[in-house]
Amino acid sequence: MSTADQQESDNVETLAADVFARDCLSRPVLQSVMSRWGTLALVALLDEPHRFAALRRRVDGVSERMLSQTLHQLERDGFVHRDVQATIPPKVEYSLTARGEEVAGHMRAIAETIENQIAEIRSDQKKYDSTR
Amino acid sequence: MSTADQQESDNVETLAADVFARDCLSRPVLQSVMSRWGTLALVALLDEPHRFAALRRRVDGVSERMLSQTLHQLERDGFVHRDVQATIPPKVEYSLTARGEEVAGHMRAIAETIENQIAEIRSDQKKYDSTR
Repeated sequence: MSTADQQESDNVETLAADVFARDCLSRPVLQSVMSRWGTLALVALLDEPHRFAALRRRVDGVSERMLSQTLHQLERDGFVHRDVQATIPPKVEYSLTARGEEVAGHMRAIAETIENQIAEIRSDQKKYDSTR
Repeated sequence: MSTADQQESDNVETLAADVFARDCLSRPVLQSVMSRWGTLALVALLDEPHRFAALRRRVDGVSERMLSQTLHQLERDGFVHRDVQATIPPKVEYSLTARGEEVAGHMRAIAETIENQIAEIRSDQKKYDSTR
């Protein structure tokens, strides 16, 4: 273990993580899952595992490159599992880890709140705009 | 009501909102609350109402301009209430609406999951990096 690794390991063990602290390691992880495509990919995978092309169709509007980057990041942070089956050609399937399921459940609840209240939200927006 | 407004009103009433649809009005609202500063502001306001300067100190690293933009957007979408008290000088306080509380509760749960698992997430990241 290098000195830098040892130092970080000490910090991780002795300081409580806090997303409100500018340099906390938890903050970029939060940002990555909450990103536009991160959120939609996680909620889509909560329904069922998807292959790349199917996920891209579900997350309407995402480019191949952005979805690929998003999935790498989610896999690196342990929210998404990438399963490669040794078929010819190989079949690659993405699913949620336990950590991913926990987070995606809350995201789906947020998305549903917004979907269910969209008419009231539009009316709030118009009221706000009319007073400026 | 203009033809465009009437059209939109018909759509809002007849189509179910769906964040997965590229042009759905719910998608920009979701993106705005899930944004880096939107999330942290909402979770901070879940603890208690804040004045602008106190909120800026709590959301470590945000610029005055970004926090101001974020709060305007959250107020416009009906997640945050801006209360101006007629004191001299006027006292401005930000608090959550019922809609804001609902969403912020789920965001806090996501942040806590990440904070509590940060050591495992760091270890997953290192494992991932070592296989590339």
